[in-house]
Amino acid sequence: MTEQALSIEERIAEKALRIENLIKEYLPGKEGYHKVLLESMEYSVLAGGKRLRPMLMEETYHLCGGKGKIVEPFMAAMEMIHTYSLVHDDLPAMDNDEYRRGKKTTWAVYGDGMAVLCGDALLNYAFETAMGAFDSCVCEDVPMVERYRMVAEALKVLAAKAGVHGMIGGQTADVEAEKAQEVTEEQLTFIYEHKTADLIEASMMIGAILAGADEGTIENLKKCAYNIGIAFQIQDDILDIEGKQEVLGKPIGSDEKNHKQTYVSIHGIQKSKEMVRKLSDEALQILRETNGDSTFLEELTGYLIRREK
Amino acid sequence: MTEQALSIEERIAEKALRIENLIKEYLPGKEGYHKVLLESMEYSVLAGGKRLRPMLMEETYHLCGGKGKIVEPFMAAMEMIHTYSLVHDDLPAMDNDEYRRGKKTTWAVYGDGMAVLCGDALLNYAFETAMGAFDSCVCEDVPMVERYRMVAEALKVLAAKAGVHGMIGGQTADVEAEKAQEVTEEQLTFIYEHKTADLIEASMMIGAILAGADEGTIENLKKCAYNIGIAFQIQDDILDIEGKQEVLGKPIGSDEKNHKQTYVSIHGIQKSKEMVRKLSDEALQILRETNGDSTFLEELTGYLIRREK
Repeated sequence: MTEQALSIEERIAEKALRIENLIKEYLPGKEGYHKVLLESMEYSVLAGGKRLRPMLMEETYHLCGGKGKIVEPFMAAMEMIHTYSLVHDDLPAMDNDEYRRGKKTTWAVYGDGMAVLCGDALLNYAFETAMGAFDSCVCEDVPMVERYRMVAEALKVLAAKAGVHGMIGGQTADVEAEKAQEVTEEQLTFIYEHKTADLIEASMMIGAILAGADEGTIENLKKCAYNIGIAFQIQDDILDIEGKQEVLGKPIGSDEKNHKQTYVSIHGIQKSKEMVRKLSDEALQILRETNGDSTFLEELTGYLIRREK
Repeated sequence: MTEQALSIEERIAEKALRIENLIKEYLPGKEGYHKVLLESMEYSVLAGGKRLRPMLMEETYHLCGGKGKIVEPFMAAMEMIHTYSLVHDDLPAMDNDEYRRGKKTTWAVYGDGMAVLCGDALLNYAFETAMGAFDSCVCEDVPMVERYRMVAEALKVLAAKAGVHGMIGGQTADVEAEKAQEVTEEQLTFIYEHKTADLIEASMMIGAILAGADEGTIENLKKCAYNIGIAFQIQDDILDIEGKQEVLGKPIGSDEKNHKQTYVSIHGIQKSKEMVRKLSDEALQILRETNGDSTFLEELTGYLIRREK
């Protein structure tokens, strides 16, 4: 079967599987007095997921002409960071979720103390893994100082977008908003930007940086990723109202039930759909204007916006 | 009053205060929708402590001839990592401690969900802060590629010693040991090495690396730090039996009450004291053999071993 004969869903699934196998290789061994920690890390990382962030990173790397393996430790690191955020989110002290994607959450299997340590370990190991790229060979004609500069730049983006003024900041604002009576549009934008868009921005920026893209291209792809991130989140809100429970694998209407304010509850479903369309059109425009073959990235973007789960 | 006229306790306190002020400057601002997170980070970092790890890092940096400010972001990062480990340790899901050093623990003030996020934020911000050293000026005659190499090396040591096979691994083994009937000497050594010694090793190694020390010196100082770390932990066990409650500020005999196996419970108090003496003598020997002025580091080592709290 040729690649063209496969649907976009099938091609995404195929790539996700390959990425999952790659990430597996970057996980630590499972021996020692801290065996249970190492097992809980693997359990958490391999508990499913679209592998969207490392996929966007790798595709952006290729779009910008990247050819080596230097992107791989960063792909693994990005998924470890995404995973740790879910492990800690699910804790009894946070959302108290016993199941995610139909599987028991980490704390439900290993206890909440070990789940705290598992999340810590994944976050720390993400940086440890990404730092391995300092020793990766880019290609022989890239001078050492340039390799150091690129990896240092990519590490800085990873830390900033995952951190206090990035994902963790967005997560905090979300927790605060849930306790508040009223959420302003500005506050909601802060949450969407940081809780959801930041790791997607980091993924595409890191792909571009490691491929040696110029500053203008990195900036454009950052904007593209921002649009994808926000559109992805609004689409999530729309699916919570219009989605099919049997496709989503989770009950719909949960935002309304939990009195959670979303883009849809503030602007209505029509304006939200228009916003998703506008954001994704802009993202597609940027991809088309970038030098290189963006066919798959365009299809992936279209899929993420049209998705039903 | 000249420096000589001050006691070692007074000089340590003076240095600790200066380091605390320095760390404060590296903390993030306190504005935004995630304000409570930023406040909880400051609360946790400024809740006291000996500042032992950044102090050892700075002194080792000076011992090895380091003169610039490149060590400062790593000093702040080290204390953030030490602090996050305490914030997560104190959680209801872990040790469930409401007080530390006479002050309310982070979760007792901000709730356990926010304390999880606060620890995550401190760990992430530690790496973000240390990465700032890529932009620090070492001194004009150090070539760019050499600065990158040193900072990358220091970052790798930080991540490895704080991580899965370092502090978090030791912490996990400790949690496992508490549940077990019997703890072997090998297991106890694993816990002491990783839970306690690893961050002390990292501190002294990073100080040496950033000062441009040669590999032999870094290796010797790593051994010195290992000895200090293990001796420090055994001294802790001894103080739990022989210490004065009013000096320690916490009840003595807690290890025995909790059936916690320690070096003292396995080897007896006499052999433990001999071990502390032997480890610290070796550490002092290494310091004396290192080129440079190690007077304060020797006094600090002696103090850490003789300390009554």
